[in-house]
Amino acid sequence: MASLKVYADRRSQPSRAVILFCKINGIEFEEVETSLFTNDLQTPEYQAINPMKKVPAIAHGDFTLFESHAILMYLACSYHVPDHWYPTDLCKRAKLHSVLDWHHANLRYGAMGYLVNTILAPFFGKSPNPEGKADCEHKLVESFSTIEKVWLEGDSKFLLGNDQPSIADISFVSEIMQLHMLPDEERNRLIGPYKKVERWIENVKEATNPHFDQVHKYLFHVISSFKQTT
Amino acid sequence: MASLKVYADRRSQPSRAVILFCKINGIEFEEVETSLFTNDLQTPEYQAINPMKKVPAIAHGDFTLFESHAILMYLACSYHVPDHWYPTDLCKRAKLHSVLDWHHANLRYGAMGYLVNTILAPFFGKSPNPEGKADCEHKLVESFSTIEKVWLEGDSKFLLGNDQPSIADISFVSEIMQLHMLPDEERNRLIGPYKKVERWIENVKEATNPHFDQVHKYLFHVISSFKQTT
Repeated sequence: MASLKVYADRRSQPSRAVILFCKINGIEFEEVETSLFTNDLQTPEYQAINPMKKVPAIAHGDFTLFESHAILMYLACSYHVPDHWYPTDLCKRAKLHSVLDWHHANLRYGAMGYLVNTILAPFFGKSPNPEGKADCEHKLVESFSTIEKVWLEGDSKFLLGNDQPSIADISFVSEIMQLHMLPDEERNRLIGPYKKVERWIENVKEATNPHFDQVHKYLFHVISSFKQTT
Repeated sequence: MASLKVYADRRSQPSRAVILFCKINGIEFEEVETSLFTNDLQTPEYQAINPMKKVPAIAHGDFTLFESHAILMYLACSYHVPDHWYPTDLCKRAKLHSVLDWHHANLRYGAMGYLVNTILAPFFGKSPNPEGKADCEHKLVESFSTIEKVWLEGDSKFLLGNDQPSIADISFVSEIMQLHMLPDEERNRLIGPYKKVERWIENVKEATNPHFDQVHKYLFHVISSFKQTT
């Protein structure tokens, strides 16, 4: 098997999703720290791997790939992980593609956009933007409501009525964990009303620990420093 | 084979992509007109098919699905269409997933957002928003640049260096055709600098006609009426 390199910054939600997936499944890889907001993303060497200048990306032997969902699907197939992560059944896989596609313009847009328009604005060379915040808050809360009512319909432990997690569970919860950057009260205002969502997050943690906590440790260290200086 | 229903409004970019894909590949289906901005999307019957109240969606026998990329992938597998649409090779398929994932927060965000913040604002109960327009214009032009430099790298006729179209080509060009709603001068200002993009659009039309023009006929009829009244 060719060697696997994962180019990642653990402060990035999709980077954590890919690292977590590898660790849970015992996939051997070299983590290449590729730091956001530095020259790491700007070098010609990195842009040959990911011309979008983002993380994560992988190099598996000579094969390179970016976009975290595409990476997770590729790794699931390439390493023959247990079927529940990315089912081979055509209909189950199609439903998983549907929820993964939904993510981009909904949960990702709302959660990342909310942070970029508020506390992370300075890191993106912007000023906090109340109109952008309101737009993203609407999308974020709507996304929690959709997860609660649609994707967690019934009493299933995981998305799509599953009793075991899929790559979507890992992707979505890695995204949501970023909201711990917000003051607790603000975060609770946004997610608190969605009790099934909160239980599901705990289910994903439980199913993926100790890896989940290990992979998120650096994020919480960054958050702790961030909260002390702001 | 179970019967296939496609719930669509041909004014919707992803609806057209799904209809076009079916027609090119001789997939028999019933087109269920599901009109944007009407009660069609609000009925309990439709929400049982697509709780997001959007188009397109499909019902294939008892199996229902929404999100156009998920639908295109499902149909490609279910109907065993020629391999170039959605390659079975793991690496080729992964690259296609990557470009499809990229679409959501880039070309889709930019092109649809530009229209919603300008001429289509009233249809979404909004006022034209200069800040939103500027944000989406930036993303749209950046997306054209990325298509030109990354996805059409080299002299390939189609995305990802391919000499035959994939589902991404259909998805993206269906999206871009919506920009014909803009005055010609405005549209040319946005896309005109990207000559490879313009050639690629012609390649996709040529490879998929007469179906491409047939599927887009209603859009151009709507555009013609729209331009006469504004």
